[in-house]
Amino acid sequence: MKVLMAEVNISEGKDLDLVEQVKAALLDGEAVDVMDINSNANHNRTVFTYKGSPEAVLDGTKRLAAKAIELIDMTKHTGSHPRIGAVDVVPFIPVKDVSIDEALVIARAFGKYLGDELGVPVYYYEDAATCEERKNLVRIRKGEYEALCERMKDPAWVPDEGPKDFNAKSGATVTGVRFPLVAFNVNLKTADIAIAKQIVKAVRGAAGGYQNVRAIALPLEERGIVQVSMNLTNYEKTPIHRVFETIKSEASQYGILVEDCELVGPVPVYALEEVLKFYLRTHTFSMEQLYF
Amino acid sequence: MKVLMAEVNISEGKDLDLVEQVKAALLDGEAVDVMDINSNANHNRTVFTYKGSPEAVLDGTKRLAAKAIELIDMTKHTGSHPRIGAVDVVPFIPVKDVSIDEALVIARAFGKYLGDELGVPVYYYEDAATCEERKNLVRIRKGEYEALCERMKDPAWVPDEGPKDFNAKSGATVTGVRFPLVAFNVNLKTADIAIAKQIVKAVRGAAGGYQNVRAIALPLEERGIVQVSMNLTNYEKTPIHRVFETIKSEASQYGILVEDCELVGPVPVYALEEVLKFYLRTHTFSMEQLYF
Repeated sequence: MKVLMAEVNISEGKDLDLVEQVKAALLDGEAVDVMDINSNANHNRTVFTYKGSPEAVLDGTKRLAAKAIELIDMTKHTGSHPRIGAVDVVPFIPVKDVSIDEALVIARAFGKYLGDELGVPVYYYEDAATCEERKNLVRIRKGEYEALCERMKDPAWVPDEGPKDFNAKSGATVTGVRFPLVAFNVNLKTADIAIAKQIVKAVRGAAGGYQNVRAIALPLEERGIVQVSMNLTNYEKTPIHRVFETIKSEASQYGILVEDCELVGPVPVYALEEVLKFYLRTHTFSMEQLYF
Repeated sequence: MKVLMAEVNISEGKDLDLVEQVKAALLDGEAVDVMDINSNANHNRTVFTYKGSPEAVLDGTKRLAAKAIELIDMTKHTGSHPRIGAVDVVPFIPVKDVSIDEALVIARAFGKYLGDELGVPVYYYEDAATCEERKNLVRIRKGEYEALCERMKDPAWVPDEGPKDFNAKSGATVTGVRFPLVAFNVNLKTADIAIAKQIVKAVRGAAGGYQNVRAIALPLEERGIVQVSMNLTNYEKTPIHRVFETIKSEASQYGILVEDCELVGPVPVYALEEVLKFYLRTHTFSMEQLYF
């Protein structure tokens, strides 16, 4: 059974009546499994997380986006979280038996719908990016909604889909495909942030570490210890246990032990496959054997 | 959401048309999720494994049992697997948000239905047993179907439900409640079965080891190594990693390493909770965070 997940970020987190209307639009068709709806008033942003068959997820995301584009006016939007449009970011995330290529078909169909039917400029990012500079969300969103009108005049930032002119009411939308993230934190039995920073350097992809690891060092003030806080962006190629074992090994050169670890937020059960194989040595185990 | 599992063993594994009719009876009502139907001609036995809400599982099991009792004639049954009746053994297994007590209510309702409506003598076993001697399936089934008529005359073996007289066509049924099993094998890098036997002694509940471990030593002829083959009968109280670490430690006194391990058949995802906490030190992790 194919399972695709979508994580839709819209630029409204205070008006919960509006959020309800958007949710109702999502649910008004073939069933998707809503995993989480998180509204943050400070960010003034709501994240809808749901999964289902690729077709059901595409159709539901179109309905959700159409309603959000109808109701949200970016000329009046303020909030602490970076954003570029009413329907701000829409990653499609392959969960089970869906290839990256299949997910790309869905992301492109959604992008075309937004551009052609709803008149919203669209940028493709991550695995759907049309060039290297558009892979990274932070780069696409630079200057946010307020800078978008000027930015769209730059030939380097012509949208991938939809009108080439600024849409003041809706801004732009970033959509694409990415692997499921795993948020994994390792807490070190030391208050010395310099040690956490050294370990970040050892594991972080950008610093020469593992390809699919984003990492920062943080102090945990109330506990008097430090944390290596990570997003693992591809748990198949860079599994949790390998990163963890490397951190333990790197920490040992300072005589520092790991206090404990955290897996934060939703975790795809498939991210545990390599972990089980490593620690329990169950090389013939298939995740199909698991039941809930 | 409450999830109860049933594993129904019926005494027919050759006549697949009969098995189809029994399956159709199971499916003729509120939906249950059929996980596996395994017919073995040599055993002349079929195991139906399914799960669902406790009510749906109870109703489906009643329909399944009524059809099997109607179609199977034990006076003509032969097969290599021990058995006592047409509907031989029916464990109800709490999987999620179902307490042992709630499962006991279901097992008792099923037992009364078999006894009162279908006229089949019933013995309760495992957590449903009415006395210590009836906890163990092997003891209840001693002498099998062929000895049942004589055995039922013994005051110690009066059935818990249903007629006190022998039912030649249907035999008797054993039903009850047990925790989900985890079948876990550890393969040792040695051909010396004596070492596997020593390790079995160290972990097996009956030998002074862990309470919820059943273990035997087996040679793996074609690989030239030996195996400690186990059923863990309560993964909450006696988790997989603890048994594995003990086996590694015991093996080390002979200079023997573990070659690999096997998790066999269906594994409840909850059995991984303690494993993850131990190896990844994620003490705040909740299985609710996992998604398929």
